[in-house]
Amino acid sequence: MTKRIPKTTIPENISAPIVHVLNYLHPVNPGIIEYFNKHIYPCNFRKGKMLLKAGEKCDHVYFILKGAIRGFVKEGNREITTWITAENEFVTSITSYALDTPAIENMQALEDCQMLCMKFSDMQELYEIEPEFNIIGRKLLQRYYRDAEGRAFIVRLTKAEYKYNYFVKMHGALANRVPLKYIASYIGITLETLSRVRKKISIANGTNKETI
Amino acid sequence: MTKRIPKTTIPENISAPIVHVLNYLHPVNPGIIEYFNKHIYPCNFRKGKMLLKAGEKCDHVYFILKGAIRGFVKEGNREITTWITAENEFVTSITSYALDTPAIENMQALEDCQMLCMKFSDMQELYEIEPEFNIIGRKLLQRYYRDAEGRAFIVRLTKAEYKYNYFVKMHGALANRVPLKYIASYIGITLETLSRVRKKISIANGTNKETI
Repeated sequence: MTKRIPKTTIPENISAPIVHVLNYLHPVNPGIIEYFNKHIYPCNFRKGKMLLKAGEKCDHVYFILKGAIRGFVKEGNREITTWITAENEFVTSITSYALDTPAIENMQALEDCQMLCMKFSDMQELYEIEPEFNIIGRKLLQRYYRDAEGRAFIVRLTKAEYKYNYFVKMHGALANRVPLKYIASYIGITLETLSRVRKKISIANGTNKETI
Repeated sequence: MTKRIPKTTIPENISAPIVHVLNYLHPVNPGIIEYFNKHIYPCNFRKGKMLLKAGEKCDHVYFILKGAIRGFVKEGNREITTWITAENEFVTSITSYALDTPAIENMQALEDCQMLCMKFSDMQELYEIEPEFNIIGRKLLQRYYRDAEGRAFIVRLTKAEYKYNYFVKMHGALANRVPLKYIASYIGITLETLSRVRKKISIANGTNKETI
């Protein structure tokens, strides 16, 4: 599924961007960094490509160096966007990860993406040989769990303006970057309603720049 | 907020029900059990009582021995149920827990509840003095993160029957236990639609027992 790049072209300190992010949670010890550099590899996805299809098993965690990704589920022929994320974030299928079962969601590159990947089985080994990695894993999961609650919250709000404002608060940088149809689907309103809300807000803010 | 019970009446092995559940994730070592027994205490909430109000800081994790709890957010005067849970589950405000900020959600006892409680500050200390507790914390968070994704998923489905079937699959035992108005709110449909769906399913199954 991912295009593996020959070992010889992988930089020795490939994990540096990941270590930089994880250091904010807990200092990443040299043993963990060494393991990362041996087991993390780059993988790229062209815009529109699927990282994962529902029903497949996801066996990787991805870290986004450049680009944006969405998760979506299908209900009949309808696609419902369940999350949108971009640089410096980790993505995976938590259903596959925690249960080793086929994923219920799909993951798709919204832009050309440069990513770093690590296999679940390697992460599992790292938890065992470097127990301190459990502290990092726990703190990271706390953050992603909180974000998942946020996603459940945004779609339960009923007022389109509240929803969009909450989206901007959580993912401000994505509001003018990803196609509006995915933002509309993610917050559970129609594209027409989203366009109306954005226009209203831009007029209120004294700007009127629409990117659809 | 919680009624603290005098130390002398707290059983020595108070944490046994929690240890039983956590042992499925990872063997709970004697140091952790000893710490639990010193820092966990019972607290009870009458039906209808609030465990937490939005805007307050939640500083406890609760474990439900008996009873059912719901989480909800308010949009104007409207209450939107965001989760429902019962025996042998942990409840807390993840927004407060992970960020030490005021909670965005409310938590309410749907039945008379017997609970065990532990302060966040004690959990934090336990992570430090018993590093193995991080393994348990990580595995527990994986499970709760997955459940949070499920909650975000259920409300995004558009067909009432799919939503209710998913609820029954996830929380079968609660379907005939908690007031239907909370289930309807949780899955994002009206009470009338939920009653219609339940009736249709009970007829299809050859039963017609409605508990509203």
